[in-house]
Amino acid sequence: MKTYRICLLPGDGIGPEIIAEGVKVLDAVGEKYGVGFTYDEALIGGVAIDEMGEALPAATLAAAKASDAVLLAAVGGPKWDTTDPARPRPEQGLLGIRKELGLYANLRPVTIFEALAGASTLKPEVVDGVDLVIVRELTGGLYFGERERFYDEEGAGPDGGNGQRAYDTLEYREYEIRRIARHAFEMARKRRSKVCSIDKANVLETSRLWREIVHEVAADYPDVELSDMLVDNAAMQLIKAPAQFDVVVTENMFGDILSDEASMLSGSLGMLASASLGDGVALYEPSHGSAPDIAGQGIANPLAQILSVEMMLRYSFGMREAADDVLAAVTAVLDAGFRTGDIADASTPEDRVVGTEMMGSLVAEQI
Amino acid sequence: MKTYRICLLPGDGIGPEIIAEGVKVLDAVGEKYGVGFTYDEALIGGVAIDEMGEALPAATLAAAKASDAVLLAAVGGPKWDTTDPARPRPEQGLLGIRKELGLYANLRPVTIFEALAGASTLKPEVVDGVDLVIVRELTGGLYFGERERFYDEEGAGPDGGNGQRAYDTLEYREYEIRRIARHAFEMARKRRSKVCSIDKANVLETSRLWREIVHEVAADYPDVELSDMLVDNAAMQLIKAPAQFDVVVTENMFGDILSDEASMLSGSLGMLASASLGDGVALYEPSHGSAPDIAGQGIANPLAQILSVEMMLRYSFGMREAADDVLAAVTAVLDAGFRTGDIADASTPEDRVVGTEMMGSLVAEQI
Ligand SMILES: CC(C)[C@H](C(=O)O)[C@@H](O)C(=O)O
Ligand SMILES: CC(C)[C@H](C(=O)O)[C@@H](O)C(=O)O
Repeated sequence: MKTYRICLLPGDGIGPEIIAEGVKVLDAVGEKYGVGFTYDEALIGGVAIDEMGEALPAATLAAAKASDAVLLAAVGGPKWDTTDPARPRPEQGLLGIRKELGLYANLRPVTIFEALAGASTLKPEVVDGVDLVIVRELTGGLYFGERERFYDEEGAGPDGGNGQRAYDTLEYREYEIRRIARHAFEMARKRRSKVCSIDKANVLETSRLWREIVHEVAADYPDVELSDMLVDNAAMQLIKAPAQFDVVVTENMFGDILSDEASMLSGSLGMLASASLGDGVALYEPSHGSAPDIAGQGIANPLAQILSVEMMLRYSFGMREAADDVLAAVTAVLDAGFRTGDIADASTPEDRVVGTEMMGSLVAEQI
Repeated sequence: MKTYRICLLPGDGIGPEIIAEGVKVLDAVGEKYGVGFTYDEALIGGVAIDEMGEALPAATLAAAKASDAVLLAAVGGPKWDTTDPARPRPEQGLLGIRKELGLYANLRPVTIFEALAGASTLKPEVVDGVDLVIVRELTGGLYFGERERFYDEEGAGPDGGNGQRAYDTLEYREYEIRRIARHAFEMARKRRSKVCSIDKANVLETSRLWREIVHEVAADYPDVELSDMLVDNAAMQLIKAPAQFDVVVTENMFGDILSDEASMLSGSLGMLASASLGDGVALYEPSHGSAPDIAGQGIANPLAQILSVEMMLRYSFGMREAADDVLAAVTAVLDAGFRTGDIADASTPEDRVVGTEMMGSLVAEQI
């Protein structure tokens, strides 16, 4: 029997609850397709800080590297919020594992489930036909550049004395842009053959380099249509006419902002998954956070986590049929009217509002 | 007679057409209130590059400094687009004048004109009651930090050889954060007493400094409610529940992206103005660009330019009553059904679709 080893990183907040449902669905897939999934659980984020003093313990990284794929739930919470640079922060776990595994391509698909079309705050005719994927560069830019804070005269300004100053560095290397651009063009070939590259070339030097390299790469993909858009305009177009986009490629920070903006087209972050790919082991996670306010109540929506399992099957294990099954199962459960609280509305009958475990079981049963 | 000297910067594209309507409205105000407005026109942006070889000629800066306020239309166009760092770009005019005049506070109000409520791509119940102002830091951050491009081994990556590298620097000084925060709190006092400060404190050192200083300033404004929000979440919340915001304060690049996103709540960028304030002469401009595709056709919407005149009257000349008149005039013209092409829809009768000059005259007549 073919066996895959999956590193589970439940993390904080609702993490442990939703990852259990991801595992439930994986097990159902394994049974159906005669594939074995073994699990290796490790600490990341706030729980890792509490138990080990750091957000990404060495044992966690080793477990991730030894696995065939990593399934992460969510990290962070007010308990660990701090602006003190000396104290560890849960996000360092996430940023650390991205960097250490070389996960330079973050894919965030945005599609609208028919059954939830009304959930968007945008008019139905505007989100109709939205089917885009944001390809976000994930290991460069402002996230990983040099940063520092210090005191000097400049910090205080014209009034004199000393004041604080801080900087972060937005840096890109040609090869980093080249490989993410290739990724976007390859993806476009499997979709509607359109790439929109987002930058701020009228201001940033990194954006001008970005634009040049993306155009160089485009020469190898004459069958794919490339357009450039400034990030401020993109923030508008995503709301004005989102169906115009197929593959959107952009640098790390712009990708962070725009992919969260785009996620709202669907009406619920609870439905969106993401894949972070590199040249080795890949990582899959929901697009939403750890929702500490509802942790432990059994009401969190596990569907984004389950859809991250769908992406894992597709991209890491090449199990396309199984991935399609997961998608079909989620669609069927939604079409049958089942909702967790976050995606329920006034028209949802009370007996169709279900908790985390029930939602996971409903999907697993369909497989 | 009280006289104000206004520096006019028509710039590129539709700039000259719309600024003429701004002047028309100023003249109407001057007549009604017995105030004199004199105009001093100067070059900026692409036209300045064509005629003088640089986007912000010294004469333009001198004219701006000698004025009581600057009215700008728009700069830029495909003619001057370039990724070559050695060639001048129109945006340098805009960035240069912001820096030289010390215009550190950019105010972008977003309100919905009743008559245009249907124009938004968001559902009416979502944009209902939206009345927010984005206070964007305008002379710091990535826009003005050190940047460079060069070749080295790192640029090429693991494959070896040489490749390009580029960086931009996101820098903030304590006093820069302090003064923009004060501005936001003062503004909140005149509104609904709420400030939401947007940063990316879970990643950026500048954001952690930002958050600390904003909270320090907040201590002087116990009557104002302060909240923090991460920029990715803000990009979502602006679409999910925009009416929650009153005053939003943020750094330069986040402000660029979020204010354009927020502008879409109104359904049309053609209706939104902005004010850039510092310690001296202030600058007023529409939020939209130079729209080179429709330049010279007499169909551009002059209302954002006219509303920038409204802000000039209010903030630079303390003419609150006159500013209210301009706002009332625009509202009356819209209520009477008049539209330029960009804000017309299927329900607009053909005889109500008007050109740039006609729209300006209609507003001026109301004053
Ligand atoms: C938690 C945070 C550091 C992270 C990011 O900004 O990348 C998150 O927002 C994301 O998009 O995965
Ligand atoms: C033209 C450009 C440099 C400018 C900016 O990014 O500040 C514009 O988008 C704006 O918001 O005024």
